[in-house]
Amino acid sequence: MQSMRITRLAQLEAVMAGRFTAADATAAEAARAHQNALVKPRGSLGRLESLAVWYAAWRGQAVPVMKAPAILVFAASHGVARHRVSAFPPDVTEQMVRVFHDGGAAINQLAIDLGAELRIGELTPDRPCADISEGMALQEAEFVQAFSYGIESVAALDGADLLILGEMGIGNTTAAAALSLALFGGKPEDWVGTGTGLDKDGLMRKRRIVAAARDANEESLSRGALRILQAFGGLEMAAIAGAVFEARRRRLPVLLDGYVCTAAASALAVARSGALDHCVVGHCSAELGHRRLLSAIGKSPILDLSMRLGEGSGAAVALYLLRAALVCHGGMMRMSEASVSGPSE
Amino acid sequence: MQSMRITRLAQLEAVMAGRFTAADATAAEAARAHQNALVKPRGSLGRLESLAVWYAAWRGQAVPVMKAPAILVFAASHGVARHRVSAFPPDVTEQMVRVFHDGGAAINQLAIDLGAELRIGELTPDRPCADISEGMALQEAEFVQAFSYGIESVAALDGADLLILGEMGIGNTTAAAALSLALFGGKPEDWVGTGTGLDKDGLMRKRRIVAAARDANEESLSRGALRILQAFGGLEMAAIAGAVFEARRRRLPVLLDGYVCTAAASALAVARSGALDHCVVGHCSAELGHRRLLSAIGKSPILDLSMRLGEGSGAAVALYLLRAALVCHGGMMRMSEASVSGPSE
Repeated sequence: MQSMRITRLAQLEAVMAGRFTAADATAAEAARAHQNALVKPRGSLGRLESLAVWYAAWRGQAVPVMKAPAILVFAASHGVARHRVSAFPPDVTEQMVRVFHDGGAAINQLAIDLGAELRIGELTPDRPCADISEGMALQEAEFVQAFSYGIESVAALDGADLLILGEMGIGNTTAAAALSLALFGGKPEDWVGTGTGLDKDGLMRKRRIVAAARDANEESLSRGALRILQAFGGLEMAAIAGAVFEARRRRLPVLLDGYVCTAAASALAVARSGALDHCVVGHCSAELGHRRLLSAIGKSPILDLSMRLGEGSGAAVALYLLRAALVCHGGMMRMSEASVSGPSE
Repeated sequence: MQSMRITRLAQLEAVMAGRFTAADATAAEAARAHQNALVKPRGSLGRLESLAVWYAAWRGQAVPVMKAPAILVFAASHGVARHRVSAFPPDVTEQMVRVFHDGGAAINQLAIDLGAELRIGELTPDRPCADISEGMALQEAEFVQAFSYGIESVAALDGADLLILGEMGIGNTTAAAALSLALFGGKPEDWVGTGTGLDKDGLMRKRRIVAAARDANEESLSRGALRILQAFGGLEMAAIAGAVFEARRRRLPVLLDGYVCTAAASALAVARSGALDHCVVGHCSAELGHRRLLSAIGKSPILDLSMRLGEGSGAAVALYLLRAALVCHGGMMRMSEASVSGPSE
């Protein structure tokens, strides 16, 4: 399948408003019937059942096998980080990219254990986007380029049958908070958390910066969700949105990670209702705004483990559960095969 | 290590009151220091960090590897099932034991995918324990024998480094509810849920039966937690308690499953505070009483997926997360090795 070439934001908006890929309703129905025939009380596998049906619907098979999960971690730097809105200095973004390549991060260990391919998408981590407290994070051309990079990154994953999106970028929970505030309203304190470990002064500073970002980008607020993403999200967030967009075109099921990743994807959900139907959110982050954001987009996370690392790590942990769901879905006997009595009466 | 031989309940009570195996505090401290040195913000792996430290403490190693997880599923029949307190007929217990042996159940698929050894402990599923609505489920000799079977089952798992306990027994959520009511007080409706799928009439009937069980065993209530387990728990529940007991002696970490499994183990917790320190509860079941029970014993479940299948399935799904915790704990670089800057200031 060829990937879509996006050259202008208005073009992307037109595509988002047009015909959109849907899940395979026949496969979903067959998967549900299959689940109900398995040797267990109906519904007794809880969330694992709906995960298996969701995956079946997007893969277009009643009993799908997952063979090639892929993890894309996008890394970028944020101009706003100079205001010390993170507990860590800005150069940690580049340092962590090196750790990813050296195999030393949490996501490396999880990818190996899961048999998942891990790719790091570097969006000029040595060159930060503009400071959102003073204006737009990205110019239109930068946004379109980063979004397209997300598209191409998914297109390059030939044969992947599940996609995990993650991110690395010191300062990006500030961007996620500002973006969420712009998309869903409320107050800065509804969306701003301590990130990698800010103290109380740092938290206050971060709230002020998010309020300043809103004021500096007031004009963008009425120009639609994608313009809002351009104004508040950094390069890695534009790439995540592009990847989610392309995955939808390919009916590739996506596990989203934490606050930053969900915020980026949320712009698509606001731009078009149902745009994230092919996405499940892997976990609820300990970062303050994430639970509110999940509620705003109507997504129920699989896990709630107080994780707040990013890198796609929460989604990767959730991938184990999708795997559990699929081995049960694919391997269990049916009630009839097993000669087990059904419910009484 | 030799397993302990228990011949009378009073002897078991004396052992429970005596010296008890503790976790390795030095290993726990070293594991915590190791976690804090890894290349991530402190605490950012959330529950995965505490799971790794818990496992390290019980294995007596700062950076333990888990190589041989084992799953014991105990199956038994309940006299009380004749009152139609389950949506399924009593003979499903034996039928499911056959499915376990044929490899067709959910727990079989999970065990294979996890590389875990699965053993089925059959406690005369063709011969139910006595009806708790009329008196004690087990005579002392039966209880001691089933408890000892649990002990021996763990002793036979030579080399296992993690234990999952599960159960199968039509009618056993009724026993779990009656046991929980007897151990922790409250009203039948606090503890009685719909099990494998009772309708409203069935739920009312089940509540009445649990109230009748309490009345019929009034005398046992003041005789200590182990007598209460004998009075209300079935054979598989006595075996689970025995297995948890023996695992503690061996410092073998345990993942508990749902309502029935936790109820059986709870008797030990009431008999002796801290008796379940080597246990983590894998998930919170959709069965009504489980959340209250977890709160009563002060345990926080890893997962909350609305599962209610039994068979050890919820604990098996949680095992994936312990594995994730340990691959991160064991494989990540330290901040110092990775040359990543620490927090600012």
